[in-house]
Amino acid sequence: MTGTQEAARRPALGIDIGGTKVAGGVVAPDGAVLATARRATPGASVQETEDAIAAVVEELAAGPGRDAVGVGVGAAGWFDRTGDRVLFSPHLAWRNSSLRRDLAARFGRPLWVGNDADAAAWAEYRYGAARGADLALMVTLGTGIGGGIVLGGRLQRGSHGVAGEWGHMRVVPDGRLCACGNRGCWEQYASGTALAHTAREVARSSPAAAAVLLERVDGDPDRLTGEHVARAAADGDPLARGLLAEMGEWLGQGIADLAAVLDPEVVVIGGGVSVLGETVLGPARERLERALPGRGFRPGPRVVVAELGAQAGLVGAADLVRTAVAESGVDPSA
Amino acid sequence: MTGTQEAARRPALGIDIGGTKVAGGVVAPDGAVLATARRATPGASVQETEDAIAAVVEELAAGPGRDAVGVGVGAAGWFDRTGDRVLFSPHLAWRNSSLRRDLAARFGRPLWVGNDADAAAWAEYRYGAARGADLALMVTLGTGIGGGIVLGGRLQRGSHGVAGEWGHMRVVPDGRLCACGNRGCWEQYASGTALAHTAREVARSSPAAAAVLLERVDGDPDRLTGEHVARAAADGDPLARGLLAEMGEWLGQGIADLAAVLDPEVVVIGGGVSVLGETVLGPARERLERALPGRGFRPGPRVVVAELGAQAGLVGAADLVRTAVAESGVDPSA
Repeated sequence: MTGTQEAARRPALGIDIGGTKVAGGVVAPDGAVLATARRATPGASVQETEDAIAAVVEELAAGPGRDAVGVGVGAAGWFDRTGDRVLFSPHLAWRNSSLRRDLAARFGRPLWVGNDADAAAWAEYRYGAARGADLALMVTLGTGIGGGIVLGGRLQRGSHGVAGEWGHMRVVPDGRLCACGNRGCWEQYASGTALAHTAREVARSSPAAAAVLLERVDGDPDRLTGEHVARAAADGDPLARGLLAEMGEWLGQGIADLAAVLDPEVVVIGGGVSVLGETVLGPARERLERALPGRGFRPGPRVVVAELGAQAGLVGAADLVRTAVAESGVDPSA
Repeated sequence: MTGTQEAARRPALGIDIGGTKVAGGVVAPDGAVLATARRATPGASVQETEDAIAAVVEELAAGPGRDAVGVGVGAAGWFDRTGDRVLFSPHLAWRNSSLRRDLAARFGRPLWVGNDADAAAWAEYRYGAARGADLALMVTLGTGIGGGIVLGGRLQRGSHGVAGEWGHMRVVPDGRLCACGNRGCWEQYASGTALAHTAREVARSSPAAAAVLLERVDGDPDRLTGEHVARAAADGDPLARGLLAEMGEWLGQGIADLAAVLDPEVVVIGGGVSVLGETVLGPARERLERALPGRGFRPGPRVVVAELGAQAGLVGAADLVRTAVAESGVDPSA
């Protein structure tokens, strides 16, 4: 057996860095998560975040991860295409820092570092809802929209490492202000934040119509979150259901735009908001059907819910470092 | 020399099917066009269009194209990913027809069939403004917007053959009606048709401001075309120059959206409108600089004018059939 064949059969460590915690897992070649570990992280300090990552790696490496082929790290943020440099990370202190080199020196293991939605896209392609697809797009709906592209069996990171940032396509000229500094970004209309935004607008202008929602926040519209809307919808509140449907329509329209650009086989919807399932995806599919450019003359993408849930990021990151080692035979962090 | 190496050194025939004519050329492996031929085509008849293509091929094959490795055909329209079937062609009678098989039987030569903007993208990647780029996007500005993607040395046609149709991204909710049946498509704001549309609107509502434009059409706003605007701008008319700048801004905004989705290294602007050069591209680049998501933290794409002009389609189609034969060693039409 060559070294690269051998690498493909070993477990790998996957790390998902969120705003408040570092979650890690030992991931088998078949995608099974053999063990997990986590640490809280204050987020504001590069040193403390790296310490938390190291603690998770050490814990896993002391157990079922002892033979791990390498460490894959996914984080919300923009990385250059090698993963060497953090270009921008909204919730973390990293900026223009050489994360990959620092961690590689610390761990002495092969390392893959990249965007968490990219890692999730890869996981869904390898083990989940996009298995075997020629061209799969991932759309993660959380506080914002993240994305990833797997084409021809490769994660596509773009020429500078930041492909798949479709949350910042402009879908409304002079629209809602986005944290990115632009107006009208897709994620301002289809995400947890968007849902809360619309709910607050309605509650302020039509308190009577929003009575069920306002009960949940002692009448204070500013406290409404996407979570409140989701729960009210589950309880049958027509306004809340309408807000979810509206978000689904914005989702479907954006998918139609992505279909015009990339013509994917499948679009996988993940992230926290995806647990709402058909309440959002039904209207999204209907909208896509009506908005797909060339409908009637061409097939559109399948729109499916992610299968790997909250572990997609760490599972994908682990398999990406395993794939890199298996293909190159060399340490990608060297 | 193997058969595939040999194929890479032979000329190929390229055919560009437009709304009114079929243009063909013999294209050398270095991209040089050794000979050309053309025929008018009525466009409404599949049979007559195929006859026109055959006449061009026969003329070229009787001369410098006698050793051609195959025939590449590009046309405005949507093809499935093999090129076997025409899904939709706005200016031609083909619909769900098996163009490739019909032509292959007729010519007895290897054949590539596909979208004309895809062929142009390939030509610019191989011989023009995107030479050697890792990820190049083509944006052809004519009566509409066409597009093509070359990634990792491959033309990317999407899962169903219709990638790169970004002219139909929705950039304005409830916007201008598009021939595709949707509203607010990008090509309704950045194309020759868009320019004419805006000019007519202004001329109707502010005839005094549009006096210079209206002089060119005997005062009839309905007769204004993009060409009139371009000429008035060249003559220094401030309104016309403003209309071109406005179109450039829509162009730049759309490129920013494509950069969010795909993160290309270079975007090549081709098509008839691209002859306007910096009058349109200057405002496009300025807009892109202001609208690029993540600006300041990441590089954006270079925006450059196409180098191959009106021959890009036939040059690209020819090289695509040559590449297919050279890589596979077998007739792609078999």
